Amino acid sequence: MTSLLLAVVLLQSPADMADKFRVEGLGKLGAYKMLADLCLNVGHRLSGSVGADKAIVWSEKTMRDLGLEKIRQIPCKVPVWVRGDVERCDIEGGASLRIYALGGSGASPKGGVTANVVEVKSLAEVEKLGAAVKGKIVFFSRPFDGSLASQGAAYGGANDQRTRGPALCSRLGAVGTVVRSLTSCDDDVPHTGATNFGETPKIPCAALGPQSADRLSRVLRGDPNTRLTLELACQTLPDKDSANVIGEITGSEFPNEVIVVGGHLDSWDKGQGAHDDGAGCVQALEALRIIKTLGLKPKRTLRAVMWMNEENGLRGARAYADWARTNGEKAYAALESDSGGFMPRAFGVSPNKLKRVQKWLPIFQPFGIERFNPGGADADNGPLGPVGAILFSLEPESQRYFDFHHTEKDVLEAVHPRELEMGAIAEALLIWLVSEEGL
Amino acid sequence: MTSLLLAVVLLQSPADMADKFRVEGLGKLGAYKMLADLCLNVGHRLSGSVGADKAIVWSEKTMRDLGLEKIRQIPCKVPVWVRGDVERCDIEGGASLRIYALGGSGASPKGGVTANVVEVKSLAEVEKLGAAVKGKIVFFSRPFDGSLASQGAAYGGANDQRTRGPALCSRLGAVGTVVRSLTSCDDDVPHTGATNFGETPKIPCAALGPQSADRLSRVLRGDPNTRLTLELACQTLPDKDSANVIGEITGSEFPNEVIVVGGHLDSWDKGQGAHDDGAGCVQALEALRIIKTLGLKPKRTLRAVMWMNEENGLRGARAYADWARTNGEKAYAALESDSGGFMPRAFGVSPNKLKRVQKWLPIFQPFGIERFNPGGADADNGPLGPVGAILFSLEPESQRYFDFHHTEKDVLEAVHPRELEMGAIAEALLIWLVSEEGL
Repeated sequence: MTSLLLAVVLLQSPADMADKFRVEGLGKLGAYKMLADLCLNVGHRLSGSVGADKAIVWSEKTMRDLGLEKIRQIPCKVPVWVRGDVERCDIEGGASLRIYALGGSGASPKGGVTANVVEVKSLAEVEKLGAAVKGKIVFFSRPFDGSLASQGAAYGGANDQRTRGPALCSRLGAVGTVVRSLTSCDDDVPHTGATNFGETPKIPCAALGPQSADRLSRVLRGDPNTRLTLELACQTLPDKDSANVIGEITGSEFPNEVIVVGGHLDSWDKGQGAHDDGAGCVQALEALRIIKTLGLKPKRTLRAVMWMNEENGLRGARAYADWARTNGEKAYAALESDSGGFMPRAFGVSPNKLKRVQKWLPIFQPFGIERFNPGGADADNGPLGPVGAILFSLEPESQRYFDFHHTEKDVLEAVHPRELEMGAIAEALLIWLVSEEGL
Repeated sequence: MTSLLLAVVLLQSPADMADKFRVEGLGKLGAYKMLADLCLNVGHRLSGSVGADKAIVWSEKTMRDLGLEKIRQIPCKVPVWVRGDVERCDIEGGASLRIYALGGSGASPKGGVTANVVEVKSLAEVEKLGAAVKGKIVFFSRPFDGSLASQGAAYGGANDQRTRGPALCSRLGAVGTVVRSLTSCDDDVPHTGATNFGETPKIPCAALGPQSADRLSRVLRGDPNTRLTLELACQTLPDKDSANVIGEITGSEFPNEVIVVGGHLDSWDKGQGAHDDGAGCVQALEALRIIKTLGLKPKRTLRAVMWMNEENGLRGARAYADWARTNGEKAYAALESDSGGFMPRAFGVSPNKLKRVQKWLPIFQPFGIERFNPGGADADNGPLGPVGAILFSLEPESQRYFDFHHTEKDVLEAVHPRELEMGAIAEALLIWLVSEEGL
């Protein structure tokens, strides 16, 4: 009887399977309830924090509740950066500006550093100024290009200010850096995120709320000699032991060929990391729940991976890839969701497999997937490319993502249950097809 | 010089034009600022209300500010239904339930009507019960089918309970009807909307908040003899003079061939009618702003129409179509946006023109339009079909629309500025291409 049922399942067309996935996955709040648990009972979870430790425990428990197999941690060492209890940016004789220290920032002296401000729009402009920024606070004020259709492209066009600007300023002797937050919002919520000093001495650096950035520009136009005080109490502590968490449905025919589906477990230390990347984590778990609940036995191993430390180090993804390279199994494919829990629009796919997957497109369309785009490499699955995995990334609608990204606004309420589910179902269907049909 | 510039414009490819429209339309808040003005300075605007009169004045002023031509009202008589100051639904000896009277509902006697409750899932079930519902309050509790990918389809599968249920109950002698709100939300906000009694005597009828509907079901399971009191003070007043508002960019070669772009100006009397259908109104106005600001002179006349009375009568749309039929011009095409100001996904197109427009698809994709679907007839442009117009409708993402539809939650904050703009740009591009290339 069971084998007859199985035969029936195997004979079903992909479109019939998609219908089953839809009915099992949509309107059931499976992914959303897991996200609520993560957001409300764990909260934010920057690498090395108590929240991150709780998130590891949460992942193992959630995987056990789902009945996943071979649940375990894949260890990694993570950097530990702590915000501290002071972040302050005051215009001399004027307003206090809204800031968040950037992750990786240095601390200021107690009482802050006070200096004149040089406003620039680009790193090139700083390089041109050279020694003229010595002793100054550099203010990067280039906004998102609002005329770009993709908010991801707008982010890509502005984020060198945050990621590389402070290190450049440090090399030239600046005493601090403030950066307009990476968003097209016009509220005053600062957006944190990583900055990379490498071996350069750390200076204090912070993201300004968009309205605070506008205000500072106005004040500087009125008086270019305006001075700013920047006080940050952040600290970089020694690296700490942490881990990715994995759990799977072991393949029935090719257990050694592993299809990874995942998101990153760590988040910034503001909000709840709901879109970034709680959504990606619970979509991966929900994808496996759907497949298990339907009683399907995948040919290949389907493995959920909760990566640690995407935000400020990528140590977890590297540790997982190292482990996958050496543990004797085949990294067959790896799908990541790390662009928010919004309505799906596309999958990115390793370019050499684009043609192969096109025939699947029609069955994804009910879930919003209208195209397979060349790509597929995201931050965490990227290191699996060199290990031989075919890479996939979920590409949801981008318009709202940078409203929430790395802020106190990235909370459960910002995620729409059905949009989140649509992504989970699309992921379930994709890993199922890859498993059963091969690529 | 001017004619040289014009020649350059005319020689540009559609893709080049799409780029110009994008740069002019995206991130400028054009549509959003108009929507803010409508929502915050006019507010809700049910046909025949003071708000609707203000909305007519607002439309004329906004069109003047945009420099549109031949701004005028197209008169229509509208029904006038007034909610009144009492809407109450109490479980005898138990909780008060959250309700909104349905538009077109009859009033209850003062103090309310109290009766036993018959819970049903369908109109067929009521017909089968027949005389058994006499003297009872009928409770339609069929929810949205959450497993459907399209929320529009879920609405279509549930809304006969609201639109036709109360009249059926009235014919069979029921003394009242309560209907589970048409939404997949699980909060307790009721969703109003029109019900149609036709010549059947009006009985009091109301939408229950989803949690109130769940509660009533639970109570009835515990005690099927539970009685309910329904008190509504709504009134139907004599019809009143009202109007559609139109304004245009007159065509340079074929001024008599008119391409309509519009939304409906009226809204329900809760919230601000931001998505329904302030969004459609301002997208039409913004589409013409973009074209005007780019200095383009369309061959055919592009006309914005703010239709009156879509929600509870469609009198404005019928009056406009009658006028268009008899005023000696050609109704060439008509595009409506009335599915919320969300990210565009598709255009519905009159089926006989589907093939013709396919070649335009790639240039719409940056704005989210991934397909042309057979369709195009929406409520207000529909009457222009028989007049000869090719019909188009904007089809945005549906997942969030029925969170807000006909509720106090349909306010400015529910609309995302960039998603709204994407629709406006897609509309601008579509009417421009139809004007210049013909169909």
